[in-house]
Amino acid sequence: MGRPLKVAAAQVGAVHRTTSRAEVLDRLIKLVEDAAAQQVKLVVFPETTFTTFFPRYYITDDAELASYYELETNETVPVTNTKNVKAFFDRAKELGVDVQIGYGEDTGNGRYNTAVYVGGKTGEVLNKYRKVHLPGSTEPFDLDPNTTNQLEKRYFLPGNFGFQAFRATSLKEECAGSSPIVGQLICNDRRWAEGWRCYGLQGVEILCCGYNTTAYAPQLWGGDQNISREKAYEDAMFHHKLVVQAHAYTNSMFCITSARAGNDDGRHPLIPGSMIVNPEGHIVAESKTEDDELVIATIDLDDCKQGKERTFNLGKHRRPEMYSRLVEEGGVKPPPEP
Amino acid sequence: MGRPLKVAAAQVGAVHRTTSRAEVLDRLIKLVEDAAAQQVKLVVFPETTFTTFFPRYYITDDAELASYYELETNETVPVTNTKNVKAFFDRAKELGVDVQIGYGEDTGNGRYNTAVYVGGKTGEVLNKYRKVHLPGSTEPFDLDPNTTNQLEKRYFLPGNFGFQAFRATSLKEECAGSSPIVGQLICNDRRWAEGWRCYGLQGVEILCCGYNTTAYAPQLWGGDQNISREKAYEDAMFHHKLVVQAHAYTNSMFCITSARAGNDDGRHPLIPGSMIVNPEGHIVAESKTEDDELVIATIDLDDCKQGKERTFNLGKHRRPEMYSRLVEEGGVKPPPEP
Repeated sequence: MGRPLKVAAAQVGAVHRTTSRAEVLDRLIKLVEDAAAQQVKLVVFPETTFTTFFPRYYITDDAELASYYELETNETVPVTNTKNVKAFFDRAKELGVDVQIGYGEDTGNGRYNTAVYVGGKTGEVLNKYRKVHLPGSTEPFDLDPNTTNQLEKRYFLPGNFGFQAFRATSLKEECAGSSPIVGQLICNDRRWAEGWRCYGLQGVEILCCGYNTTAYAPQLWGGDQNISREKAYEDAMFHHKLVVQAHAYTNSMFCITSARAGNDDGRHPLIPGSMIVNPEGHIVAESKTEDDELVIATIDLDDCKQGKERTFNLGKHRRPEMYSRLVEEGGVKPPPEP
Repeated sequence: MGRPLKVAAAQVGAVHRTTSRAEVLDRLIKLVEDAAAQQVKLVVFPETTFTTFFPRYYITDDAELASYYELETNETVPVTNTKNVKAFFDRAKELGVDVQIGYGEDTGNGRYNTAVYVGGKTGEVLNKYRKVHLPGSTEPFDLDPNTTNQLEKRYFLPGNFGFQAFRATSLKEECAGSSPIVGQLICNDRRWAEGWRCYGLQGVEILCCGYNTTAYAPQLWGGDQNISREKAYEDAMFHHKLVVQAHAYTNSMFCITSARAGNDDGRHPLIPGSMIVNPEGHIVAESKTEDDELVIATIDLDDCKQGKERTFNLGKHRRPEMYSRLVEEGGVKPPPEP
């Protein structure tokens, strides 16, 4: 192995609307401790990990809504230093483990669906990513509290940092003196080739992606409204794996995906499927439960070279002059019926 | 079914370097006749269907090289009227079947890896596509004639028509008065999300893609040079299906893929895997052999609506202002090591 690295997805099981942040933090700290005990150097946690996945609820109480975000009103106070969640980041720093973790970010001026990547030894925020592809709608589908809504467009602004890759300098020594090139995505972003390719074009070797993916919401998906829960679950898992494996392969990068899984509130099921995928698109490790669980693999970053130098040599084979439609505004433009 | 359409992939088995065009035409005509007898309205044929896949050879004889192309030196003489292959197009027109078929195009000024889409009733060329993503290299990997080379960059110019969707007006009546929106790709193009998305942005409902995909060429792929033939075949099939299924799903379109399969010259094996994939990414029909074979399904174009209106509503969820990297020239730009 040329540049070996032991990594993990930290899957997190059910977190209910009533679950306290303190209880969640205890579970996250246990996961990072277990990872460190197994010499893992990078742990990827899910999307909005500190709370339940609140965009499924139509929340009319402003105080309740505010309670799902971490307040970072001062640029000099990163999330790693905010009162409610500091203990988690402190422990990861102590243990010398890099972490990516997702959370609701409140800047005072705007709210985002965010993930930070924090270096293990210094506790420094090496990168912050804000989710670009917000799914769903601004208005609730249904006011019935049993219905799974998808209100990310209501509760978050679309990410405004773009897809900026970075060097995980914290892992330079681990990786034979060459810092891994890392990219971040959040949940629905993984279905959109654009973000992956923006990272591919920066030579990304490890893509980190946390998610909350509902296992049953036919009213949101359209299509067969009488689909069984088993078939819906199977489809959701199929689509999740399909897009991650295909985009990892076509961009010649590893991907670590981490699920918030389980059955929130006993009525909002989420798929598991946390996994580590290699640059050939194969799953090298995968979660076995719907609970808190570490999915661990030792990967060799040099395995990205085969694709990057041959089949998916982007500089050699792409034809950017043919892609102008990709950056046009205005959505879908079908050819007219003659 | 709202807009039902019976379609087929016409897989074509081994075509050797010594196989005559007349022999190939007979086989293609039999396939289109069999399809018509089963009320199929659209048949998708492979890439460079009239000859063996000649870019695998390092050809130094100009006359031999020229023999692999159809000469269309006059814009008013489409491939459908060129002496060597006219019989195929005439028969398809007679039978009232739409066809897409790939061939080496020689304009007198340039050579392209091309596919035409021809309307069944009129025999009119409704669209012509020239392969954009040419794989391989301009120089041979190896002069040993047993070696599979990949010299498309030597023998073809990159396609200069872009990704222009069109209406298959020939099928308007079949499809409840609304002509299918069709896009064309060739072989390696199917691995590149850019072309698919350009078509998705034009509302494409049926993507037609022929291919020649080698089942064993570790010297071209890089990676494990001692890979067994069985594992190489399995990997090539896995990657083929993975990209087609993922890109069909993320662009909410049907895809008809058609293989030139079999073992050319008894030493250049190609994968089969001709299939019809639906807009949810599921395979609805698939080839069972490596020989000439029709893969048939009746699809409902209205099944594209679910994805196009919800999860992959491109106008609603994409953020083109974040994608500027996709159209930049200059290849991969990694973040510098600090």
